[in-house]
Amino acid sequence: MAERIRILDTTLRDGAQMERISYSVKDKLRIARRLDDLGVDYIEGGWPGSNPKEAAFFEQAKHLTLKSARMAAFGCTRRSSGSVDSDPNIAALLAAQTPTVVIVGKSSDVHVRHVLGTTLDENLNMIRESVARMKAAGKEVIFDAEHFFDGYGSDADYSVATLRCAWEAGADCVVLCDTNGGTLPSDVYRLVSRVRAELPRVPFGIHAHDDAGLAVANTLAAVEAGVGHVQGTINGYGERCGNANLCAVIPNLQLKMGLDVIPTEAIGSLTEVSHYVSEVANLKPYAHWPYVGQSAFTHKAGLHVNAISKMAKSYEHIEPHTVGNRRRVLVSELAGKGNIQYKIEELPVRLQLSNEQARELVSHIKEMESQGYQFEGAEGSLELLMCRSQPDYEVPFEVLDFLVLVEKRQGTEILAEATVKAQVDGVVLHTAAEGNGPVNALDKALRKALLQFYPGLASVQLTDYKVRILDEQSATAAQTRVLIDASDGESSWSTVGCSANIIEASCQALIDSLEFPLTRKRLREKSAAGMELVGEDRS
Amino acid sequence: MAERIRILDTTLRDGAQMERISYSVKDKLRIARRLDDLGVDYIEGGWPGSNPKEAAFFEQAKHLTLKSARMAAFGCTRRSSGSVDSDPNIAALLAAQTPTVVIVGKSSDVHVRHVLGTTLDENLNMIRESVARMKAAGKEVIFDAEHFFDGYGSDADYSVATLRCAWEAGADCVVLCDTNGGTLPSDVYRLVSRVRAELPRVPFGIHAHDDAGLAVANTLAAVEAGVGHVQGTINGYGERCGNANLCAVIPNLQLKMGLDVIPTEAIGSLTEVSHYVSEVANLKPYAHWPYVGQSAFTHKAGLHVNAISKMAKSYEHIEPHTVGNRRRVLVSELAGKGNIQYKIEELPVRLQLSNEQARELVSHIKEMESQGYQFEGAEGSLELLMCRSQPDYEVPFEVLDFLVLVEKRQGTEILAEATVKAQVDGVVLHTAAEGNGPVNALDKALRKALLQFYPGLASVQLTDYKVRILDEQSATAAQTRVLIDASDGESSWSTVGCSANIIEASCQALIDSLEFPLTRKRLREKSAAGMELVGEDRS
Repeated sequence: MAERIRILDTTLRDGAQMERISYSVKDKLRIARRLDDLGVDYIEGGWPGSNPKEAAFFEQAKHLTLKSARMAAFGCTRRSSGSVDSDPNIAALLAAQTPTVVIVGKSSDVHVRHVLGTTLDENLNMIRESVARMKAAGKEVIFDAEHFFDGYGSDADYSVATLRCAWEAGADCVVLCDTNGGTLPSDVYRLVSRVRAELPRVPFGIHAHDDAGLAVANTLAAVEAGVGHVQGTINGYGERCGNANLCAVIPNLQLKMGLDVIPTEAIGSLTEVSHYVSEVANLKPYAHWPYVGQSAFTHKAGLHVNAISKMAKSYEHIEPHTVGNRRRVLVSELAGKGNIQYKIEELPVRLQLSNEQARELVSHIKEMESQGYQFEGAEGSLELLMCRSQPDYEVPFEVLDFLVLVEKRQGTEILAEATVKAQVDGVVLHTAAEGNGPVNALDKALRKALLQFYPGLASVQLTDYKVRILDEQSATAAQTRVLIDASDGESSWSTVGCSANIIEASCQALIDSLEFPLTRKRLREKSAAGMELVGEDRS
Repeated sequence: MAERIRILDTTLRDGAQMERISYSVKDKLRIARRLDDLGVDYIEGGWPGSNPKEAAFFEQAKHLTLKSARMAAFGCTRRSSGSVDSDPNIAALLAAQTPTVVIVGKSSDVHVRHVLGTTLDENLNMIRESVARMKAAGKEVIFDAEHFFDGYGSDADYSVATLRCAWEAGADCVVLCDTNGGTLPSDVYRLVSRVRAELPRVPFGIHAHDDAGLAVANTLAAVEAGVGHVQGTINGYGERCGNANLCAVIPNLQLKMGLDVIPTEAIGSLTEVSHYVSEVANLKPYAHWPYVGQSAFTHKAGLHVNAISKMAKSYEHIEPHTVGNRRRVLVSELAGKGNIQYKIEELPVRLQLSNEQARELVSHIKEMESQGYQFEGAEGSLELLMCRSQPDYEVPFEVLDFLVLVEKRQGTEILAEATVKAQVDGVVLHTAAEGNGPVNALDKALRKALLQFYPGLASVQLTDYKVRILDEQSATAAQTRVLIDASDGESSWSTVGCSANIIEASCQALIDSLEFPLTRKRLREKSAAGMELVGEDRS
């Protein structure tokens, strides 16, 4: 087995093929940053030749400073009977200006004939010329051999010829793809072993899909057979049943098989990364995901809970915190004090909290979380909660009342209007505004009141607004969680609101999104004043 | 490999340990009947010794006529230092009066010492006496060797001794349990092969958990190593990350490995059984489940759709209908006319569309998509659009006006109220309702109006409500897309609404979610009437 396994994360390319996923360019940049923090080797950012949004991502990704990951652009081999130099897809790949490119080519005779509609020889030319063109441009080239396993079953010699062709043209890694996800682990092991024997100098990789529920196992089988490059996605997102789930693949390789995959300290952030990506994708995390699911270390059976109290590992295959997850016991909720303590220490502004205050804050946060608040994707609200727990906290404004009205009558445009009664420094302000929708009207009415006192808020823009229904069984009557992202151009923050009433939840998140920059500014001023004082004492 | 694989389904016992699952006795009986239809060999119905509800199930299960499955009751070995004849758990097992019993015993020295708190010898006595007592009562006995794989790593000789002890006491099958779900497939294969060599006459089974995302693979590895008895649950339900998912295990064994598992005709009902169990469990089915998930054969990428139209199996590992599932092609921003044409042909109700109408419909859909509608996850609205394009379409109801009001005043609870003016068959209805939030109030007011005309809508439940902001830069002023999932208990559908005003977008999706079942019912009635007419013509 290879001792160092390189991970190519394709969450942003193959993962984005999943039903209901549609990332904006900004979403993709945010995820790319997290993947870099996690320590994956490659971030496959998209297919620049497929549409303008993808090309725009690579344009912006040029300015992304990555610590350890390499950005990779994905594209297919040149068109049949065309020239590599006039191929728009090849041109888009070069224009992406990434250090690494992934070229996908057909590795199955059946697909060459019936889907590409070209000859077996021309397909080899397409692979050879496309790989060679990228090498001539100084790129690292990863060749994805699409449908390799099915192709090997149909015409083994031809499948191997495509791999050899890519390698001889200069590919740095040749990835065996189980594109349809239907291969069994024992077959993956057998076939990978066989091609490694035939092409002993080629560094191989594996790309598995989960159509038979075997993507993780197929990935491990390929590693056991000697591949050193693994492709997959966070949460196994991907077309149909998804890709190999890196949140299971990485800990299996690193914690169970003892291989060197990502930095040891990074594996503890796996649960957080998983939840972050599902948050950005606006998909509910699946509670039963291995390692990172909310239920992955949740114990319900009396027998198990009893055993756990005697010996923690009796019903746990690893320590939950190793991957940043936690144990939950359903009969008696255990405290997640550690998580919250961790977050307090993570704050950019240092808070003075007595032990007693910290305990109270923890229990307050836990109470709110049990109501449906989630501070994982809303650090702004969490920081405000912590600030509000300080005895000398001065609230910059207070919303006393609000009223929102949406009206649609035959033959008229829909109307949304809001009134807000707010109080700043003892002064009561009563404002009204119309908006595109009820939350927009509320936002405008609130700003109308606050801008008189805090003109700096004019630079604060709300940049994203997300809604998640918590108890899906209750549908429109369910608890609603609203997440708002805001930015003042320099920094950005996220806030949360939670209520069965979407307007109330939005209003909470809105208030936090405006209170946050005001509070931070005050804290910074205080802190700066404190430093000056220290300076004066010394003089 | 064993040619005939026996399936023990533990959906009703281990599967019921899953978070949020709580079956009534009636639920369990309904599921047992379906499992029998599916052709599993054993239905592990519960643990009669654990609580009165479990015992009540077995009382009623006596009257269940099963075609091919055997009912099995589950229980642990007698208590340490006790007598098998006075053990309440053993007594409950006998009282269940099932032809088969499953006895679970400890197979790991560490667990015997630290969890049971007894000696290694006494544990062997407990296994021996408990198995023997059941054999004396004429039962078929399956012995579950709990923590076998972990135990083998700690004290292999002792683990094997527990297996031998159960076998010598008369057990008909000895099941190797990966209780914590942390074992890798290659280790499962190696250890199963080893104990089969040590105890060549023992018929072995496998019980796998999915904590490392490997339960299906571990099950296949054990079968490849020679076990002939497989335990798992429908949908992989179970504690933590769940048990081996029989909806993947069964087709893998039967369709890919060519083994005899369940009747050939029954495998076509697998998708239906999967959805039935999730319906009874009141859990939303996971769309990305292998074989049976709604997205398992769903194609989104233009490249894939293009390939599929040339060769169906190009991106499918099996024919979807083999397991009772179906191919879906998503209509997304990338889609061309081909996708939409494909979609029209896929409709359960045949529409008569001229070429001109089809072209108009396609351009209408594309226009709506450019405004932000997304029909990819909203086939209900798409089907309605198609129906509405028919010249003889009769709209079942029309919403003329609505008004929504959300009010929060100091010291009072938040209020949400809606009024709706709707028209059905020329009658104008004006209703009002309060709700948890504005959309809930609107939903209630609308239903209040419609239920007078369409009492059948009472069975329609909204099961999910999602909101996505499209142009995040505009934040609360942005175009908003609302997706609603609804179900009448038999089938489910998704609808979409889109507007800068979240209330308007919700109202559109809400209207579609109620119009959809009314329209489908009418079309079905028309279609049935048409068939009768043909019959009459013939007579």
